[in-house]
Order: sequence, then structure tokens, then C-alpha cells
Amino acid sequence: MTQTTFLYAQSGGVTPVINASAAAVIETARAHGARVFAARDGIIGALEERLIDTAQIDDDQLNALAATPGGVFGSCRFKLKDPDGQRAEYERLIEVLRAHEVNVFLYNGGNDSADTSLKLAEFARQRSLDLKVIGIPKTIDNDLAVTDNCPGFGTVAKYVATSILEASLDVMSMASSSTKVFILEVMGRHAGWIAAAGGLAGQQDGDPPQIILFPEVPFDRDAFLAAVQKSVESHGYCSIVVSEGVRNAEGQFLADAGSTDAFGHKQLGGVAPMVADLVKQSLGYKCHWALSDYLQRSARHLGSACDVAHARAVGVRAVELGLVGKSGVMPVIRRVSDQPYEWAIEVASLADIANKEKTLPPEFIRDDGFGITQAARQYLAPLIQGEDFPPFVNGLPDYFQPALELLPTRLPAWSAGG
Amino acid sequence: MTQTTFLYAQSGGVTPVINASAAAVIETARAHGARVFAARDGIIGALEERLIDTAQIDDDQLNALAATPGGVFGSCRFKLKDPDGQRAEYERLIEVLRAHEVNVFLYNGGNDSADTSLKLAEFARQRSLDLKVIGIPKTIDNDLAVTDNCPGFGTVAKYVATSILEASLDVMSMASSSTKVFILEVMGRHAGWIAAAGGLAGQQDGDPPQIILFPEVPFDRDAFLAAVQKSVESHGYCSIVVSEGVRNAEGQFLADAGSTDAFGHKQLGGVAPMVADLVKQSLGYKCHWALSDYLQRSARHLGSACDVAHARAVGVRAVELGLVGKSGVMPVIRRVSDQPYEWAIEVASLADIANKEKTLPPEFIRDDGFGITQAARQYLAPLIQGEDFPPFVNGLPDYFQPALELLPTRLPAWSAGG
Repeated sequence: MTQTTFLYAQSGGVTPVINASAAAVIETARAHGARVFAARDGIIGALEERLIDTAQIDDDQLNALAATPGGVFGSCRFKLKDPDGQRAEYERLIEVLRAHEVNVFLYNGGNDSADTSLKLAEFARQRSLDLKVIGIPKTIDNDLAVTDNCPGFGTVAKYVATSILEASLDVMSMASSSTKVFILEVMGRHAGWIAAAGGLAGQQDGDPPQIILFPEVPFDRDAFLAAVQKSVESHGYCSIVVSEGVRNAEGQFLADAGSTDAFGHKQLGGVAPMVADLVKQSLGYKCHWALSDYLQRSARHLGSACDVAHARAVGVRAVELGLVGKSGVMPVIRRVSDQPYEWAIEVASLADIANKEKTLPPEFIRDDGFGITQAARQYLAPLIQGEDFPPFVNGLPDYFQPALELLPTRLPAWSAGG
Repeated sequence: MTQTTFLYAQSGGVTPVINASAAAVIETARAHGARVFAARDGIIGALEERLIDTAQIDDDQLNALAATPGGVFGSCRFKLKDPDGQRAEYERLIEVLRAHEVNVFLYNGGNDSADTSLKLAEFARQRSLDLKVIGIPKTIDNDLAVTDNCPGFGTVAKYVATSILEASLDVMSMASSSTKVFILEVMGRHAGWIAAAGGLAGQQDGDPPQIILFPEVPFDRDAFLAAVQKSVESHGYCSIVVSEGVRNAEGQFLADAGSTDAFGHKQLGGVAPMVADLVKQSLGYKCHWALSDYLQRSARHLGSACDVAHARAVGVRAVELGLVGKSGVMPVIRRVSDQPYEWAIEVASLADIANKEKTLPPEFIRDDGFGITQAARQYLAPLIQGEDFPPFVNGLPDYFQPALELLPTRLPAWSAGG
């Protein structure tokens, strides 16, 4: 029996725990005597034959890798769609995989990548190639079908809930004579999962955040302002989480519908400064706002132990599936029970995941549209449990920042751009 | 000998560790059989006789208090200036203190509060009142004179350095085909201490953040754009920390000098979106930016152990000074050695601290104006050492959020506004 060779590639936006999946893939393959190459910069690197032999990462470094945010091998947003429309890309990818004797392609991404994986698996099957394709789930957006949740989301959820809790304690300290309204803008252009996670900061009616603005709920200016005023009058302050994906009644993103500047440029600011301006102009309250952007997506210093365990488990299972010749599948997380939270890894067909999007269910949003329900809390709470802190050296996380060498190429140059 | 009664008040912007000073004050006084009242909402609460008996906080709660951000008793920005100009306020304050048999007033704040403390101490001395006044240092701005550093700054520094490190790992993951420039805006309207702390994320030339924009260095558009371009060409990306206090050559805040929107409003966004827009328009690079605002000031989940130790130590010493009848002084931190970092608490006269401002020394800023020097690193590095994580329950920091009862009033009502 010949040695199995995996090619592992990261796809799309990175997460705080995607490297935990990568480390689990490498460890598991190593334990089975298999090789793992990694594509530099995702599928573009695979196409351009920029490959890394992970044998250069020793066991200690693997532990560091598992606790490092970002994507250590690089990622990209480049969608391989239909083999008929992008035949050259599919042919080239197969050529690279064969040149390096790769028999299993592991694609760590979201629903676009699941689609690519599915098509590549089918392409290989039709040609009777010795190539299996397995997806590994990741996305902070938590919008993949079938799986209970997506590795990456739990840590972002923990960061957002912690951040709005902390900032709320700050604003309530001084609200009697100063800033009364604080607004935190979070990611999630299409679904309110991350915004909903902010709701975990409060337990009871009136706890911060008093208001969450979801992409799923059309923005109602008057109802919003009334809710802000009510919170300030009842509690002395108002703490708000707003999703970047909030839209007005016409379906436009609030951030885009806003004013242009004196030069006719769209304002670059997100939705938080617009909401702050609205509150200030309409109610006269002093506002502060924060926009956490990549900070929320990379906050591995506050890793959710649950999330890290999920990220590792899907990496382990993906390798095991590859070793037994499965293809066109993805290991997913199944929830066995809410409390205590029990979960298991199962295997799903990529056909059930590709291009599908799981949005926040209506029963997770409070009747007034400004908060989460008990059902949401029950779903979300387990995902932020436990602290998986990285090692710290000299006061900072000791992240893995290797200089990784590329494998010698075996094929003529090829540019993914051309 | 009668029992000593302290009145403790927090002043100005809160910090992630001001409650650690408060907890140390209460513990130390309790150990000496002294009482501690706290003013609700800072000096305004003292004037309005809104006082809290800290005896209602039990020992377990004190530990939780020490690990909680914000100001648990509330704070305010209200400056008591000259006793001649604000005679009514000084008289009222003395009246409240006497009504509750307070012999020591502990004022936990920055240089404004040091000035108030000094004047109140002098006012009491001239009238031979049984009232001592002691300052306790705090400010994330790190701009107090005499003390080596200010409790609050170390934790903010640790958060900013960690955040820019993490976001840089994220942006470098995808820079080859997507976002190439990341900008983090931090606090520090008058001094670049917090921005400088971002520099700790990198060790060597070329490490992120490649550019820091300080309030102390007039913004030079062309030099900045050249530095961004150089970083992107050398490293594939550019990571930037910008202080909210950056000014143009004319001395205007960059954030204020910016464009107004279509309605003639000043843009509410800070300086980060403006810098992002400049880079995008001038160099065509895709940018992302974050504005951490109160998140950086309340990030107790990433407490610096050094900072927390400082915050506690000044609280302990303030009580000890009060018990031996000192007045008009402040416990400060003296640096004994850089490496290993050794420090001691000393006692400074408030006259040497009041109204003074310690800015970033020129020798801490690199010759090109875009980074920190070895001298800065030597000063800053010890302040972020060690992790003082709060306790976590159900995946979130278990912060102290008590409902604290006010003492019955003994005087007619009085409004600080009137």
C-alpha cells in the first residue's frame, strides 16, 4: 500500500480556530504515516503549485499552530464553480495534485468551498482518478447547513459577548453625567448569528445589551429610538449591538444607504457611526461606538474551549475519512443534548451543504425584534463554554509565525489570474 | 481613638483596573478596623450625598470587584477647581464629609483630580479640619507626572498589542488576493502612550504593526503613503495603529479636519476610516479598519498582572497613608529596574502631580516617526507582563454587578448642577 498524501487548503475568510483544524489534520495524518502538503494562499496556491510540506513543522510548533489565529498557510476568496465553465482550472488542479501524488484533497471552508469540493469530487470520480475530496467546515458566520454550528463561530461569539459586557460596565459607570449610549458593530452581513451572540452578555430583562439590531429585522427608526429612550430612562444608559448587515425597510444595507461625504464618496464608516449619529441628533444623548472588524475574527486570546474542540474534531475526522477512501463528504457537528452540552461528529454529504445558507431562525429573535429568546440562548450558550487561552510569552500570546518553505515545483508556471 | 472613616471616589474616565484599587482600599481599611464609604458617581455623588457603605460588600464579592472593569461605584467628569471660584462646592463637600464623620478622602483619578485633592487638602488644613486628602493614581492615558506609569495603562497596552498582533495575522493570511491594509484606531487624544504600546506586538524590523501614527508626530501624507506602499511591497500587507489624537501640520485633529457629509454634519467616524479612505484612494489597496473605543478601556478579560498589582498596591498604600494622618500626597510607582522589572511604591506630593502632563518622550519615537525605539520597548514591555484573567462562569467573565444601597442622607438635598 502506498503512502497517502493529503493536500490541505484553507478557503475564504479565516477564523480564530481554523489553524486548530489544520494542526489536527497534520497530527492525525502523521500518526497514520500519511503526508500532508498545504496550499499557500488557498486554492490559488494549489493552482499555482505553491505548496508547503508540513513535515517542516515539528510537534511543538503544531501545538503553537493550534493556538494561533489567522490562516497560517494563507487563504483566498477564489471560487471554482462549474467544471464546464472553468475547465482549465479543474484540469490544472488535477495536474498539480497528480504531480505531487496527492490522493486526498481537504478543503477547509464554508458553503462555497463545499460546492467546489463536491464538484471536484465528482470530476475525479467520473475520470476514475485516485483522488478523494473532503470538506472541513469553518466560518465565523455560522451559516453552514447540516452542522450544529461552524468552527470559528464559538470563539467570535465569546469575544463579542465578553466585549459588549465589558463596554457596558464602562458606559454604565459614567452614564449619569456623560456618555449614555454605546454601540458595538459586529460582522455578519447576511445572518445575525454573531449579533445574537452579544445577547449572551445579559441574563435578565434589562441587562445589557438592551438592544440588538439584526440583519433579519428591517430597521424601524421610530421603534429603535423609542427603545433607546426607554432604556436610558429605565437604566440610565443603553448598550447596543448592531450587525453590519442591518437593512432598512427597502432592503438596502443601512451602511450603504447613508450619506456621501463632501466629495461624493460613500462614507467609509460602518453602520455604528450612523446609528450613533441618529441617536445623537434625535435624542441628544452622548454616544460612543466601536467597530471590531478583524479584531473579533482573530481574537484567539479568548478562545472558546468548545469551539477549539470542534475545530480539532472535524480536522481529525476529515483525515480518517480520507484514509478510508471517502469522498464528497464533510464531517459535521451533531448536537446530542443542550445541557449538559453533548456533541458528536457525523458525516454529511457535501451535496447537502454546498451553496446552502442557514439563517437565524425567527424563533431566536424576541418579539420586539431587539433581542434574543430563550431558545437562542439555549442554542448559543454551549458554544462559548470554556477558555482555551493560548500560551503567553512576555505578556503577549506566543503565536506561531513560521517562515515556511515551498516545495520545488514540478510543473510549468501557471497564474490563477490568467 | 475613634474609628477612621474613608470616603473613596472615582474620577474621570474609568479603567479596566480601577476597581482593583477600590477593592484594595476596602480590604486594607477593613483589616485595620476602618470604615470605607464610596461616593456614587464620583465627586458629584459626594456633593449630592449619594454615598455607599462598602460594608455591604462581602469578602468574596471584593475578590470579584477586583477583577471587574468599569467603575463599580460610578465616576464622572466634574472638576472642582479653585475654592474661591467654587466656594459653595467646597463648603458642601466639607459638610457632607463631616455629616458622615469622614476623616480621609481618597480620590482615585488623573491630574485634574490630583489638583482637586491638593486644593481640598489645603482648604481643610487652613481651617484645621480633621480631614486628610490622598490621591490614588489611575488613567489609561499614562500621562501622570512623577509615577513610573499609571494603573490602567498596562492592561490597555496589553489589549492593544494583542489586538494588533491578532488582526495582523488575519490580514496577512489573505493579503495576497484581498485586504492588504489594516488600521486600528486607539485612544490617547493628547499623548501617544497607547499607540506606542501597539509597537510591542512586533519585535523586529518589518514585524507588524509596520506603521504607528502618533499625536506627537504631525501627519505627513506623502511620507505615510510611501511607508504603506513600501510595507505592502516588502511584506504583502501593512498593519497600522493610529492614535485618535493624530494632527495635521496645522495642528488640527485629523478626525476633525475631515470632510463633512452631505448634510453638512462633521463625519462621526474617527480617524481610522479617514486613513483607510486615503490609502484606498491614493494607492488602491483594499483596507479594513477597527475602532476599539471603550473595548480597549474595559478589556479586563486580558488584565496585565503587572498593572493589576500596581493598581492594588497604590490602593493599599493610600489607606496606610490615611491611617497615619498624611494629606496632600499620592502613592506612586517607582521603577527600580527594567529587567527584571522591579518596582516600589513611594509617596509624592500632589503639588508635583496636579495639572501636569507627561507626554511620550521624543526618544521613544523612531527617527522615521512611524514606530517605537528600543528605549520605548524597554519602558513599555514590563507593564504588560503576566495574565490576570478574571474568573469565568458559563463562558463569560464573572464580573461583579451589585445592586448597592445608598446610605440614608443626613443633609438637605443639593444638586451639583445647581
